[in-house]
Amino acid sequence: MNSLEKLLQRIIQRVNINLREFEIDVAPYIDKLVSIKQLETVHGFYAVSPQHTLDFRFSHSNLAGSYFLGKCRTSNTILFQSDIRGDELKKKGDIFRMAGFAIPLTKNEGIRIEDSLLIKTLIHNFSHDPETPERFTISNTVSTHYANIHGSPTDGSFLGPFATVDLTTVNDCIIGPYCYIQAGEINHCNIASGTVWVRSPGNFNFLYRFPEHGLKPYINFEPGRQPDGEFIDFTDRYSMAFESIFATVNREVPIPVPDTASLDRFAAVCPQTTIADNVLVAQRCFLKKSRLGKGANAQENCFIINSRLKGYNVTAHGAKVIDADLGAEVFVGFNSFLRGQNCGLKIGKKSIIMPHTIIDCTSLIIPPATLVWGLITCEKDLQKNSISLKKLKKINQGFSAGNLLFEGSGKSFVQTFRNRIQHILEANGAFYNGKKGKGHAQKNQHISFNIIQPYSEGRKKGLYPTMVIKP
Amino acid sequence: MNSLEKLLQRIIQRVNINLREFEIDVAPYIDKLVSIKQLETVHGFYAVSPQHTLDFRFSHSNLAGSYFLGKCRTSNTILFQSDIRGDELKKKGDIFRMAGFAIPLTKNEGIRIEDSLLIKTLIHNFSHDPETPERFTISNTVSTHYANIHGSPTDGSFLGPFATVDLTTVNDCIIGPYCYIQAGEINHCNIASGTVWVRSPGNFNFLYRFPEHGLKPYINFEPGRQPDGEFIDFTDRYSMAFESIFATVNREVPIPVPDTASLDRFAAVCPQTTIADNVLVAQRCFLKKSRLGKGANAQENCFIINSRLKGYNVTAHGAKVIDADLGAEVFVGFNSFLRGQNCGLKIGKKSIIMPHTIIDCTSLIIPPATLVWGLITCEKDLQKNSISLKKLKKINQGFSAGNLLFEGSGKSFVQTFRNRIQHILEANGAFYNGKKGKGHAQKNQHISFNIIQPYSEGRKKGLYPTMVIKP
Repeated sequence: MNSLEKLLQRIIQRVNINLREFEIDVAPYIDKLVSIKQLETVHGFYAVSPQHTLDFRFSHSNLAGSYFLGKCRTSNTILFQSDIRGDELKKKGDIFRMAGFAIPLTKNEGIRIEDSLLIKTLIHNFSHDPETPERFTISNTVSTHYANIHGSPTDGSFLGPFATVDLTTVNDCIIGPYCYIQAGEINHCNIASGTVWVRSPGNFNFLYRFPEHGLKPYINFEPGRQPDGEFIDFTDRYSMAFESIFATVNREVPIPVPDTASLDRFAAVCPQTTIADNVLVAQRCFLKKSRLGKGANAQENCFIINSRLKGYNVTAHGAKVIDADLGAEVFVGFNSFLRGQNCGLKIGKKSIIMPHTIIDCTSLIIPPATLVWGLITCEKDLQKNSISLKKLKKINQGFSAGNLLFEGSGKSFVQTFRNRIQHILEANGAFYNGKKGKGHAQKNQHISFNIIQPYSEGRKKGLYPTMVIKP
Repeated sequence: MNSLEKLLQRIIQRVNINLREFEIDVAPYIDKLVSIKQLETVHGFYAVSPQHTLDFRFSHSNLAGSYFLGKCRTSNTILFQSDIRGDELKKKGDIFRMAGFAIPLTKNEGIRIEDSLLIKTLIHNFSHDPETPERFTISNTVSTHYANIHGSPTDGSFLGPFATVDLTTVNDCIIGPYCYIQAGEINHCNIASGTVWVRSPGNFNFLYRFPEHGLKPYINFEPGRQPDGEFIDFTDRYSMAFESIFATVNREVPIPVPDTASLDRFAAVCPQTTIADNVLVAQRCFLKKSRLGKGANAQENCFIINSRLKGYNVTAHGAKVIDADLGAEVFVGFNSFLRGQNCGLKIGKKSIIMPHTIIDCTSLIIPPATLVWGLITCEKDLQKNSISLKKLKKINQGFSAGNLLFEGSGKSFVQTFRNRIQHILEANGAFYNGKKGKGHAQKNQHISFNIIQPYSEGRKKGLYPTMVIKP
């Protein structure tokens, strides 16, 4: 057993010990997920930029195909094609305000990943945990394909494919495939697949669960095999488009990009795509025959195909928008899968598509200012899984509809979402006017990428050398 | 003035202060040599390998297009497309023997480059300086296109294009274009262009100088302009062949390579080229329609075109062999330029082509076991600039021929060369028999290359971040 294989065994043991109460062995889930050969041969990246903290330390790790931005540490960790985005880390001197506390930072916040295996996982650093404001740690954790650890310190946990933990501290939990959890803090939970849970204690609680038979064709994850289903098939279908992008050191910009916009050097763009001012297109995005209006964004792992986004649209991490026409300010949440045919899917302006929503039908018209969730394959599903924001705002004591249980204040729920969308657009530079309001779209333009590879032979084959990178 | 421009000014000042006795200002020589734009955009590399010491520290430097192998440090330095090869550095615990001393190494030897500007320069680490066995330093130095600092600690010096200092400690010297100096130690010398000087105190002294009018068409270097002449035109002609090689992260091997041989991932090879067992082809080599027999090598920056190398040939750094047929064990020294037409140039076995020899004629036959030097454009030149090794061995009191002055023992000279050739072949693995005799050809097969880039914007634009790389 070489060093890399030993490291994998170490991580599996760490996770199993943490999850012992659930009597789960994660090994059979992991065995087929990543080939040692791939880990040994795929190269990683880190970003050099004057706009972001430059502070990396990688030790005893494999970082195949992964990408790092901002202050990041890895030790005893295997990352495969993961994105570790540290561009919103808090800085020394910042005051972090939470629950009436004003917490001063005495050093730059950093992302630390220890004793973990993350596969195609997106880490975004905007952590809300007030207990460790200077350190956002992921430890003793296995996270699988296209999971999203979004500002969520995570310890001793196992995340299924396309699972999202969002601004939630997670300790000793199993998060099933395609779960979306935004709950502040959770401990020792085993959350069934397809659970969408948004909680704000004292304000509201949104809890939906996908019907099991309805979700399986999209994502299915069983021990001893790779995850499968339409989500996997879909991304696999386009994987070729990224090959040459990741194999070359620098590349030409494939379409015109306004000075105020940012098209990531690792995004795949086919012709007949246009992007307007203040647009942000993040890495591993795929754009084809689409128009992104002013201030729209396509975050990491998004696919936008044959579609029009009117402007100020948020297309959150991993969302797919195919043959759709989206009005202004439409928000599409994490990992949503929206697929019409011949642009037959129309979503009215200011609508909110909840994270982890599947809309898969030839044509459908969603009125403006509508909240939409869950699995929708026909008009009838839409009636059951949507509510106008106007109506929702009037709800004080909750309601239930189909698989959804909503408790608390609709007004608070809508306001919380609106605030978050506003923050996202601001952070991405959607409102930049040439002077004020710079965000990622403007700041992410001048980044160099350094390429890192592991030892290709010997005892340490597949391990990366120790690297310390500073300004 | 940004940080990179300030750094360039600092280096120029350092060199001028060191060379003040010669009243030279190196600034006009440097102004046109490298564009700041290139320094800001070209990427560098370092090698990750289990066979070589992995220990890098880069600080406040620009490393555009440069390559590092082994223990290397840079600070306040600009390197442009240079190769820094540390694969023969002495190791902790080694005993370095010199002049009756046995010097134990208490730590790994490292290459240190400080306050210097090196352009397309090759650094090879096999240092013979007994005064600093653990540190091979290049400081306060400007070195220009295709210069070769071959195991030569160098301080306060200025090297012209295609100059070579070989196993020579150099302090406060100007080394003119196409000079070859192998003299143990030199101080405060201003050496005119085209000087070939090989000295072994008490044994022999070989001193040749190219006729000025004869050398100019090949290499010409004047203040305020790029170096020009056939050497530059020739390398420029083939530069396109390297573009895609340096632009991709990894590449397919273009021709079959025996298990015992090594074709560097940064060498350019056209079809109809074959390489036999134990062959070493180093980076930035260009091979076309040629055959390299068993144990032959083509070292960094060599061009071998329409030629046959019978076997156990040394083609030293920067040598060019075009339309030539080389017998077994022919040695071609550094930066030699050998060009026939239609394979009309034939060099008999065991001949020694001195470093910095130009043979440029349609057809010429050099008998076996001949020493050849200087500028040869016709049969008549050959008569003047060659001697059979048999005859040379009998010389005890020196001789002169044309521009050559030879003093001392011919036997000692030949023996010294033979020993060195043997060492080179051994070090390169030419004699590997499947069990014993591993050298660079066998050890250089499993190297990964990490790609490094500078800040692309801001105050530090063009400077690389500080990097510390360890196993």
